[in-house]
Amino acid sequence: MENTNKKRRGRAAKKSNKKVKIIPLGGLEQIGMNITAFEYDDSIMVVDCGLAFPSDDMLGIDLVIPDITYLKDNYLKVKGFCITHGHEDHIGALPYILKQLNVPVYGTRLTCALIEKKLKEHQIDDTAKLHIVKYGDTVSLGDFKVEFVKTNHSIADAASLAIFTPAGTIFHTGDFKVDYTPVFGDPADLGRMAEIGKAGCLAMLSDSTNATRPGFTMSERTVGKTFDLIFAEHRDSRIIVATFASNVDRVQQIINTAYKYDRKVVVEGRSMVNVIGTAAELGYIDIPEGTLIDIDHLKDYPLEKTVIITTGSQGESMAALSRMASSIHRKVEIVPEDVIIMSSTPIPGNEKAVSKVINELSMKGAEVIFQDTHVSGHACQEEIKLMYSLLKPKFALPVHGEYRHLMAGKGLAEAVGIPSENVLIMSSGDVVELSEDSCKITGHVEAGGVFVDGLGVGDVGNIVLRDRQSLSQNGIIIVAMSLEHGTNRLLSGPDIVSRGFVYVRESTDLMNEASAVVREAVADCLHARITDWSKIKNVVRDSLSEFLWKRMKRNPVILPIIMEIH
Amino acid sequence: MENTNKKRRGRAAKKSNKKVKIIPLGGLEQIGMNITAFEYDDSIMVVDCGLAFPSDDMLGIDLVIPDITYLKDNYLKVKGFCITHGHEDHIGALPYILKQLNVPVYGTRLTCALIEKKLKEHQIDDTAKLHIVKYGDTVSLGDFKVEFVKTNHSIADAASLAIFTPAGTIFHTGDFKVDYTPVFGDPADLGRMAEIGKAGCLAMLSDSTNATRPGFTMSERTVGKTFDLIFAEHRDSRIIVATFASNVDRVQQIINTAYKYDRKVVVEGRSMVNVIGTAAELGYIDIPEGTLIDIDHLKDYPLEKTVIITTGSQGESMAALSRMASSIHRKVEIVPEDVIIMSSTPIPGNEKAVSKVINELSMKGAEVIFQDTHVSGHACQEEIKLMYSLLKPKFALPVHGEYRHLMAGKGLAEAVGIPSENVLIMSSGDVVELSEDSCKITGHVEAGGVFVDGLGVGDVGNIVLRDRQSLSQNGIIIVAMSLEHGTNRLLSGPDIVSRGFVYVRESTDLMNEASAVVREAVADCLHARITDWSKIKNVVRDSLSEFLWKRMKRNPVILPIIMEIH
Repeated sequence: MENTNKKRRGRAAKKSNKKVKIIPLGGLEQIGMNITAFEYDDSIMVVDCGLAFPSDDMLGIDLVIPDITYLKDNYLKVKGFCITHGHEDHIGALPYILKQLNVPVYGTRLTCALIEKKLKEHQIDDTAKLHIVKYGDTVSLGDFKVEFVKTNHSIADAASLAIFTPAGTIFHTGDFKVDYTPVFGDPADLGRMAEIGKAGCLAMLSDSTNATRPGFTMSERTVGKTFDLIFAEHRDSRIIVATFASNVDRVQQIINTAYKYDRKVVVEGRSMVNVIGTAAELGYIDIPEGTLIDIDHLKDYPLEKTVIITTGSQGESMAALSRMASSIHRKVEIVPEDVIIMSSTPIPGNEKAVSKVINELSMKGAEVIFQDTHVSGHACQEEIKLMYSLLKPKFALPVHGEYRHLMAGKGLAEAVGIPSENVLIMSSGDVVELSEDSCKITGHVEAGGVFVDGLGVGDVGNIVLRDRQSLSQNGIIIVAMSLEHGTNRLLSGPDIVSRGFVYVRESTDLMNEASAVVREAVADCLHARITDWSKIKNVVRDSLSEFLWKRMKRNPVILPIIMEIH
Repeated sequence: MENTNKKRRGRAAKKSNKKVKIIPLGGLEQIGMNITAFEYDDSIMVVDCGLAFPSDDMLGIDLVIPDITYLKDNYLKVKGFCITHGHEDHIGALPYILKQLNVPVYGTRLTCALIEKKLKEHQIDDTAKLHIVKYGDTVSLGDFKVEFVKTNHSIADAASLAIFTPAGTIFHTGDFKVDYTPVFGDPADLGRMAEIGKAGCLAMLSDSTNATRPGFTMSERTVGKTFDLIFAEHRDSRIIVATFASNVDRVQQIINTAYKYDRKVVVEGRSMVNVIGTAAELGYIDIPEGTLIDIDHLKDYPLEKTVIITTGSQGESMAALSRMASSIHRKVEIVPEDVIIMSSTPIPGNEKAVSKVINELSMKGAEVIFQDTHVSGHACQEEIKLMYSLLKPKFALPVHGEYRHLMAGKGLAEAVGIPSENVLIMSSGDVVELSEDSCKITGHVEAGGVFVDGLGVGDVGNIVLRDRQSLSQNGIIIVAMSLEHGTNRLLSGPDIVSRGFVYVRESTDLMNEASAVVREAVADCLHARITDWSKIKNVVRDSLSEFLWKRMKRNPVILPIIMEIH
């Protein structure tokens, strides 16, 4: 690491027709799974390595990680990963990817600590090459020099990246907001950003998550004020606050308020205990002596003298708050006097789950508060415009978000004066060639999601998912038969077994009729001298399928199994 | 039908300790499936008979209809249904229920027409007893007299019901809002409501759908103004408006605006064509001559001279707008100049689907507008308070909505001065006994949802759904074996087949190992002289399950099938 400010400026001022490639391998037209490769000559450096949570149609899938075929095909070029911050959608795929491609990883202190925790769980912390970077430091990765610039987000130690390339400077905002009064640490280093802009910024990749929202995102501190009001109003109740496990600053504010109102604090939920533990170890959170107590000591204090900070603000069925709401939490029982603060807004898709938890808590008589108890970690329109105004990039590449967010991001870039033809919306897998004079998509590489299911990585694909989809809608009927070798005479069966189809006990007539249909189909085959088993199976499948559709308007998966008996 | 105003008032003024029962059989702690029975002595009359759409965990289910065991057990008492309005969640279960219980059905004109359409589809329109009621008319149903009172909602001809019972007057708001300037027909008959309140209202059941929202719901006409602005601004684009099929007034306003800006109108989407057709026949919608054209004639007009009104505003995957967005609509192709107005807000649970459609439309270059293009059909807090102030009921029973909405409804009743102990939150199946002096839950009857899957009603229950859930998460493995009669010697197999588990071709090692595990399990059984097949199946299932969990951390459904060979 070296301070290259001066050299850089000289370089940026010179004209060059060198071309650098930008290759997003994930994170576009989706929320999550952020990973973008930057390539020049024999050097590739990668920004972030996140996972995505499965969408509703990815039945049974635990996680989705990026397809890094392109990086593996060019593994000698890959110099390392630069990580912007410690959220799952930016670090979550690292344990899986590093097993395939063990290159150095650079990040700020908290980011590295959170990554290390993951690598330990996967038992690869010994071999991984993790490097802590300070704000202002510059890392050399082949032909690239990357400076970590202080920014704000809903987790401490978030960085924007200034990537100095032979073609010019590329600024990647990372996930960001502009918080002039952050709870921990400093505001975003707008001065350094302006400096980089002044020296010449060729292109900017900008967080578009909130690009459809007008105005400014409020400071994290405004939530602290709401907490204060709620605590002041509810001195006779226990207070339970649910928020994102990774929102250390939010937890800090709850602890501050609890301390002010003389309450003991319990942190509950595995992921939150993990993150807060790490943050506390590193000094990213300040817990006054004696404030934090173990959950087993809750009973030693009057309810109204306690606060529980918990996971489950998104209605996740296995998280602590959901377990409390449905009375299966082993240590916390909701009582009618409880006040529950939902300190997050539902991520699209989670609305119903959140609603369910609120209903269950209300049924137990608890009061649920969710107004003014959350601010976003992402920049709204005015902050994004501020970035453009500071960096003054020639080209704009909106990133992070669904297509409509990227479109909104494009609108903002144009609003601050970047010509429409200099704003490019990328898709995952696009190869963008960037030079001083041009920025365009010139190719495409393999990219997409790889499904993780249990210990399996990539062994579940679209065919398996399609099967799961069919099974989930209509169930399965298995038709087992034994045929005599040579004659194809039915020796045993058909045995018809179903799962997820109908109550068999209430449908014996139906099953008897189905059995007759199969018997007839097999007899027809015998009669027509069809001996090919796959053909017999098809005839059985078609006959039964037609019968069931006519009779019930249903379409189960039908699986004939023929056993040969000698 | 007779005018019983005078008699009623006399009756309401007298003291009585007669008890009437209120039995909600659905619609509480859920959205949809509204149905409530009122019982006195030998008379039962039922308000509404709606369906619910399946929740995410009801895999493969098409619809949910109420369990009417209680009505069937008392079928001689049931005098008829009074229907408040023509939405699916109030009429949708009628075709199923009337097949089991063919009693008279009363509703206003449009409501009856929409019901009749449904009955025709189910081919029971000949036998059904459908009666059109005018506002102000009173229907006698055994000991009950029911007056239909004009109210407003997002469909015309919506009624509140004044139910005159031997115990006193019960007012059921139905789904309502207060619209002083409705697009079609008159504002809610607040005068009559006040009169009923003055004569004495014992209890009110009030729509709580929006009870958590402050203020007033805006008039439907405000949406018309937004349409005007959008049409004025986009004179060079085709305009596509997506809204609820049943929102006749919304369609009227789109047609009015189209006519003003000299555009032709196409209505697209089966359910919308149905509803608008019925509304037009009955004169509930006014379409200027020559404005409406067939979709096949779209090509005869310049794009910017047309408007398409379509279903799919909730992102429903098979609806017209979704098909246009994903380029599988046979007659409409989205072009970059198109302007799409989403004239509805996503119903909780549909946010992601709506987002997907917006993304797809944006990718095609279309502009999607969704601000100020919708107003709710349900009353907000101030309107609900207005109802309480007009009716002045002694007891309040919030209905329609999840538990948190009912709780909010309770809060509003208390805010206008109804003592807390006079506000009762019911659950589906509760039996509420109401007299002049008391209103309390005294029992419980069978209630809940019956699943409709294809032509099957009630043949899919929780066990089948649980199976579908397991199948959807992990798939299924079938282990087929032929055993010799008497000896249990393995004659053929084990054949291992899977669906929704892994790519078998890429997992031959795994399948070979699995096969060995099964073989060993069968051999162990033979050795231990276990001859009971269900025991052998259990041993096979357990061995294989353990093997797969250790090896892959997955838990597929395992189904051993044993065939006996003589």
